[in-house]
Amino acid sequence: MLFLLRHSGRTLLTLSSARTVTTSSYSAHMGKRVAVVLAGCGVFDGSEIHEASAVLVHLSRGGASVNMFAPNIDQMHVVDHLKGAPSEEKRNVLVESARLARGNIQDLSKLSVKDHDAVVFPGGFGAAKNLCTWAVQGKDCSVNEEVKAALQAFHGEGKPIGLCCISPVLAAKVFPGCEVTVGLEKDDKYPDTTDTAAAISQLGCKHVSKRVGESHVDEKNKLVTTCAFMCDAPIHEIFDGIGLMVRDVLKLA
Amino acid sequence: MLFLLRHSGRTLLTLSSARTVTTSSYSAHMGKRVAVVLAGCGVFDGSEIHEASAVLVHLSRGGASVNMFAPNIDQMHVVDHLKGAPSEEKRNVLVESARLARGNIQDLSKLSVKDHDAVVFPGGFGAAKNLCTWAVQGKDCSVNEEVKAALQAFHGEGKPIGLCCISPVLAAKVFPGCEVTVGLEKDDKYPDTTDTAAAISQLGCKHVSKRVGESHVDEKNKLVTTCAFMCDAPIHEIFDGIGLMVRDVLKLA
Repeated sequence: MLFLLRHSGRTLLTLSSARTVTTSSYSAHMGKRVAVVLAGCGVFDGSEIHEASAVLVHLSRGGASVNMFAPNIDQMHVVDHLKGAPSEEKRNVLVESARLARGNIQDLSKLSVKDHDAVVFPGGFGAAKNLCTWAVQGKDCSVNEEVKAALQAFHGEGKPIGLCCISPVLAAKVFPGCEVTVGLEKDDKYPDTTDTAAAISQLGCKHVSKRVGESHVDEKNKLVTTCAFMCDAPIHEIFDGIGLMVRDVLKLA
Repeated sequence: MLFLLRHSGRTLLTLSSARTVTTSSYSAHMGKRVAVVLAGCGVFDGSEIHEASAVLVHLSRGGASVNMFAPNIDQMHVVDHLKGAPSEEKRNVLVESARLARGNIQDLSKLSVKDHDAVVFPGGFGAAKNLCTWAVQGKDCSVNEEVKAALQAFHGEGKPIGLCCISPVLAAKVFPGCEVTVGLEKDDKYPDTTDTAAAISQLGCKHVSKRVGESHVDEKNKLVTTCAFMCDAPIHEIFDGIGLMVRDVLKLA
């Protein structure tokens, strides 16, 4: 118990009443052990909240046990999500990601591949700003060293990697020749797919057009991708698409 | 479009690529118009993220159109979710709630009851810190005037109100004699229900014991409540419980 709120000598609410998203809660079926790598908390400067939440709901339903991780670094930007503009504030990726993880999160440097059967990266601008610099450098981006090490370690062990929204560019950058999707090319509902797909091709990878309700599996590289909020779809369709990605990750794990 | 990220003269990612959770996306079936009232972004000082996300997914699946609102006030606390301790920072409830709303949110003072068929309040400490002061004063709490006005207006028009987790205390404080649930009394999986239920009874209301996978409907007051993270349950069970609450709200709307 971390702190108490008391009134008239009686505990009103404790942190224990705000339960963490724990392994024990998740592992009702002693299923696969999955690491989820977050990038902050909020679509414009961190992990896309609804994608991250959907990943956790589907992993839980699939009987997986989950550990969450994030790099202990400053965010590239702090964006005021009401104004849609960067502010002067500084925020830490790990500290903000802890909001999504209800406090139960570790420094990405602690991620041990041998303790996990798979890893999942939700999307959002944070994936393209804090996990790599795609948001400002495109295909010439650099990937955070811990993120790169984690990707290479899971890949090297033949363990599946799930990515959604803009996160598949991490795989495209680290695994030349791989196959990923960020949506359907040349469709009004997927306005940013064309440029992103072109950049992915320029990296020597294959972009596969897929709808929001589909995931793509690169069997050779054990990569599972889905476009999520890269498509202008109702949130329940995005939720369901992420469900397919999680299902395919767990199948491969 | 609010800002661009450019590289070599080419737009890499725009805010248009991070779509807002819009009415048009939600209202595929021109369904019920539902207001969702947020209280920040993060379980310990704002809206519980996964509860808020579940509310949006289920409303979307139910064909509802959604508008989000939050009070334009400072948070009671800013809690470092990694340490689990309050920090010295100040954050605004509306600005932080905009993270959950992907920027598409309005000041609670703008909420018009005539434009909506129902209202839903996700839980989290923010509901007990920023929407009222239950977290520090229990049943002697005060309720934010805009929150109280919204609750009374929907109630007065006979429009349903959905609440989950600790949010049902808002109804208990504003509508003496009403019926709500915050979980199952005297069960290890619901450790905080007993005290909260007792305080609700002391306000002249009826606490109804319900499991995480159930919602309670007070037909007379058109209140629909479910315990969500007041229960130490796997996140997919909480997601499903919120689905029942949303279903019952839409039925009454």
